[in-house]
Amino acid sequence: MGNPKNAFYAQSGGVTAVINASACGVIQTVRQNTDKIANLYAGANGIIGALTEDLIDTSQESDADIAALRHTPSGAFGSCRYKLKGLEDNRAEYERLIEVFKAHDIAYFFYNGGGDSADTCHKVSQISQSLDYPIQAIHIPKTVDNDLPITDNCPGFGSVAKYIAVSTREASFDVRSMARTSTKVFVIEVMGRNAGWIAAAGGLASDQDNDIPVVILFPEVEFDEQSFLAKVKEKVESYGYCSVVVSEGAHWPDGKFLAEQGTRDAFGHAQLGGAAPVVANMIKDAFGYKFHWAVADYLQRAARHVASATDVEQAYALGKAAVDFALAGENAIMPTVVRTSEVPYAWEIGKASLADVANVEKFMPAEYISNDGFGITDACRQYLLPLIEGEDYPPYKNGLPDYVVLKNIALEKRLKKKFAL
Amino acid sequence: MGNPKNAFYAQSGGVTAVINASACGVIQTVRQNTDKIANLYAGANGIIGALTEDLIDTSQESDADIAALRHTPSGAFGSCRYKLKGLEDNRAEYERLIEVFKAHDIAYFFYNGGGDSADTCHKVSQISQSLDYPIQAIHIPKTVDNDLPITDNCPGFGSVAKYIAVSTREASFDVRSMARTSTKVFVIEVMGRNAGWIAAAGGLASDQDNDIPVVILFPEVEFDEQSFLAKVKEKVESYGYCSVVVSEGAHWPDGKFLAEQGTRDAFGHAQLGGAAPVVANMIKDAFGYKFHWAVADYLQRAARHVASATDVEQAYALGKAAVDFALAGENAIMPTVVRTSEVPYAWEIGKASLADVANVEKFMPAEYISNDGFGITDACRQYLLPLIEGEDYPPYKNGLPDYVVLKNIALEKRLKKKFAL
Repeated sequence: MGNPKNAFYAQSGGVTAVINASACGVIQTVRQNTDKIANLYAGANGIIGALTEDLIDTSQESDADIAALRHTPSGAFGSCRYKLKGLEDNRAEYERLIEVFKAHDIAYFFYNGGGDSADTCHKVSQISQSLDYPIQAIHIPKTVDNDLPITDNCPGFGSVAKYIAVSTREASFDVRSMARTSTKVFVIEVMGRNAGWIAAAGGLASDQDNDIPVVILFPEVEFDEQSFLAKVKEKVESYGYCSVVVSEGAHWPDGKFLAEQGTRDAFGHAQLGGAAPVVANMIKDAFGYKFHWAVADYLQRAARHVASATDVEQAYALGKAAVDFALAGENAIMPTVVRTSEVPYAWEIGKASLADVANVEKFMPAEYISNDGFGITDACRQYLLPLIEGEDYPPYKNGLPDYVVLKNIALEKRLKKKFAL
Repeated sequence: MGNPKNAFYAQSGGVTAVINASACGVIQTVRQNTDKIANLYAGANGIIGALTEDLIDTSQESDADIAALRHTPSGAFGSCRYKLKGLEDNRAEYERLIEVFKAHDIAYFFYNGGGDSADTCHKVSQISQSLDYPIQAIHIPKTVDNDLPITDNCPGFGSVAKYIAVSTREASFDVRSMARTSTKVFVIEVMGRNAGWIAAAGGLASDQDNDIPVVILFPEVEFDEQSFLAKVKEKVESYGYCSVVVSEGAHWPDGKFLAEQGTRDAFGHAQLGGAAPVVANMIKDAFGYKFHWAVADYLQRAARHVASATDVEQAYALGKAAVDFALAGENAIMPTVVRTSEVPYAWEIGKASLADVANVEKFMPAEYISNDGFGITDACRQYLLPLIEGEDYPPYKNGLPDYVVLKNIALEKRLKKKFAL
């Protein structure tokens, strides 16, 4: 064996409450193996940092700050929305990556992201053969959408699910208090353009101790206005109030999103609404019920203050596993969460081939959605509950979470050529 | 002294994360003084319960369930939006209240609410003289809007402030991660139709350890589109991103709310938007920045999971003080929070005459708003920080907060006559 090589790590796509916990797992494991991996360079703003040679020298960060990543939401090194094309379509990008990797003696590529990133990571893993440069590429799963295949779940999802379940329960308590003379319907819009996993989590607000009427609009179920309105009316007449959880991806049979109402402002601009106000107004028009609505947007995926302990633990473990797999000589794989026992919930780390992961989207299975299309089944509840289990509070300072901001010191560039994105 | 009399307690207006903590303080203190107050009857859905004789017998609740009110958001007995008219305008309502009080031997009236409720409570306190029925009326402050006079702050506000400060910080971390290739501006809409206290709390997201660009739109400052857009542009060019906190009450110089854009849907219905999407689109139209927006709505005031420990403690103490004041013979007053020391923060319970509280609204003082109108001053920060200090987490069960739902057993009615609202 020669001198230890360096590793590259980057964060990709929408960030989450726990993607930095994965980064923490990667970096701490690298620091425990300096005989095998000399240093870890992070891409500034994801893969873009590799292309433009904007690398961050993580060795300049203190152990304490790296440890604090575990409780800090968002992407500490910056993320990006940038998908590499195929090698045949844009050979220049791959050649540039290799130039940068060579210049900095990088032999390990860790990419932390969702479906698109798994595809990018898979392509990088193939450089090894096609461009004759030895690199091991490992993908670390991350996506609040929970839509990656093979793995039991995706880090980031459990914490969003907890946030939505908690928020739906809390808002439902609120509207129940107000329903006698005021608000009778509360609508919350949640993320999940194609897959309804996050919307499903709203169903957890109700359980054997808390009988709460929750009506869910999934992207997997075509919207039927009449049956939806009938369901809301039934709930309000029976409970006095109703909560509605609408996925941003809820859509009409023709595929048009509920959010696209063709509304125009006074200047004729298309109004970018949101599904929640559309659904709320629909209910008001039909029954006159007073309503309130919320759009959680980034609040849900950034909510590290109410993260799931299970999620944090798995995010960290997957980051650590990525490094362990790399040191064991693996390439073109993604560490996964394997559910080994349902009750009590138990899991271990497994692995999947990136060829099987890239460009496959996992939707809610039909048996997780109730027959009427507006709720979750017991099977779904059993799947979801372990993922929101446990609280992992960040430390607080002056009444606010004490999140870390890294120094992010740039590594000196070694290439003369710049690269235009 | 004759036999101990009974007491009445009701919750009014928009509920909060800690109004039940006040209820807990009232009930536990009553239970410690059974020689002086026999029982506490709660109004089902606020003052309406007194008018319709729908009273809840709180003696049927276990000590454990009453203790759990301290960590449960919303109004455990139901609230209402219902304002009593003056005695001269609707004598029938007051006569009915007295009939109900007499029928159930009620000598103490505890009303837990905001400005309108203080007014109602004040009117009830006057029955004593004008209708010759002995009743002591004590108002317990509660409002997320923080707009009651005299008291240092209002229970409910500190927890909303903490939620908004935490959420703004978390979402700002998120948008900062994404800004290189994606979202550059995040807009969050917060409550506060007339007073900008909650919007001000968004400014706490930024501090000496976290330099975050936050632009705030207060209801106290007339909206100036050009200077607002210039401020956002300046922040994005300097930081790479920007967070905007917009109060639902932000308005144009002519008084029209930003949310009222005159938008119509495909059927010509007025579109009920929200200020956040309006502001976000305004920025997009001017500079093309990609944006995300959130509307927190009920999530902010129901968020007991991230309540301020200071707020919970004060809410409880004010409930307790209301009973103590009643036992000391007080009438027509409201217990208040008195700030006795700024650094370190210290407070004690004081009292205010309801005549001085009713129908007075406390806005943000000019010295709390920065000269440019888009931020908070150090004085404001010093006022706000103690109010969000400390965490008071609820217990969790199955990954979700274990909030109590009371049995709410109805007291047998004694009046034959019904009362039409």
